[in-house]
Amino acid sequence: MALTTPNPMGPWKITVYDQENFQGKRMEFTASCQNIMECGADNIRSLKVECGAWVGYEHSSFSGQQFVLERGEYPRWESWSGSNAYHIERLMSFRPVCSAVSVLNHKESKIVVFERENFIGKQWEMNDDYPSLQAMGWGNNEIGSMQVQSGAWVCYQFPGYRGYQYIMECDRHGGEYKHYREWGSHAQTFQVQSLRRIQQ
Amino acid sequence: MALTTPNPMGPWKITVYDQENFQGKRMEFTASCQNIMECGADNIRSLKVECGAWVGYEHSSFSGQQFVLERGEYPRWESWSGSNAYHIERLMSFRPVCSAVSVLNHKESKIVVFERENFIGKQWEMNDDYPSLQAMGWGNNEIGSMQVQSGAWVCYQFPGYRGYQYIMECDRHGGEYKHYREWGSHAQTFQVQSLRRIQQ
Repeated sequence: MALTTPNPMGPWKITVYDQENFQGKRMEFTASCQNIMECGADNIRSLKVECGAWVGYEHSSFSGQQFVLERGEYPRWESWSGSNAYHIERLMSFRPVCSAVSVLNHKESKIVVFERENFIGKQWEMNDDYPSLQAMGWGNNEIGSMQVQSGAWVCYQFPGYRGYQYIMECDRHGGEYKHYREWGSHAQTFQVQSLRRIQQ
Repeated sequence: MALTTPNPMGPWKITVYDQENFQGKRMEFTASCQNIMECGADNIRSLKVECGAWVGYEHSSFSGQQFVLERGEYPRWESWSGSNAYHIERLMSFRPVCSAVSVLNHKESKIVVFERENFIGKQWEMNDDYPSLQAMGWGNNEIGSMQVQSGAWVCYQFPGYRGYQYIMECDRHGGEYKHYREWGSHAQTFQVQSLRRIQQ
């Protein structure tokens, strides 16, 4: 079958709703939104990603928990929030992941992970998705630091793409994340057990 | 770096605990468990997969919601349960996924998805992981039926590997899943927006 050709590099488009199941106030965006309250909504309760890859945040100004949002339909908070130490039902800001590679070029993503902070200890160069780092031979349940050399990646606290998410991009921080404190304001440990490329 | 060579095909080993954070009664298994209550525990509240890929079930006798369990540490129910329409904190039975391919041979997995039930309509042969079917050009948020030709797969209701999980194996049902009623007792719709291979 010839599938519809995906649009490889945007333009980005996301439609958000202030009620579950695509109900209530409806707003379309093609660029980042720093605070949904400035658009007259108190929260985002469902959304459709129509083009590109996005990241949503628990708080305004792109802070708090991070949620990767890829093309498709998200009818309520559980569909993006996943499994976390505490449940949040809040999505207050979002932006495109500009460095996410096209699905047509997804082999071009590259990240180097290090055993310890500040890019020391054992290292491993990766260009594929890993639902279990330990199944691939990584020795423990932590990553100390990371260098994103190409594309955008999402790391997860637990195997199988579960738990806290950390979005890592080649065009932010110079692609360098030398301690968990640089992974996001919600990061509290070095624990990472799965990671994958973000594609759009 | 030379990583530790992963053990490609088992033997399977899982350690489960009846309290969170690997506390309480501890039990090791190298084969399936049909009802954890027969082992003297009322529930499983944390676990470590030490070898192989497994699937856990909400209820005894391998029924109810399904949770793929890959190598790594799961300190509490949120780390495997993920995002669902309702939260369950119950894991009563589990078994190895014998047809999951080795991480060394993961390109050998193959599934054909069909637009409609009973293997009709548009079809698409897949041998890679797809966090968003729509980003890859699939026309809607549903899959009507599937034929697993090699390996084991997990399909998810939402993009980014979120929501209900459906484990599909080449060595069960003859690899044929012609209607969502055959995906598991918890399946209620044809909605599938991401899918990936299960590796071990």
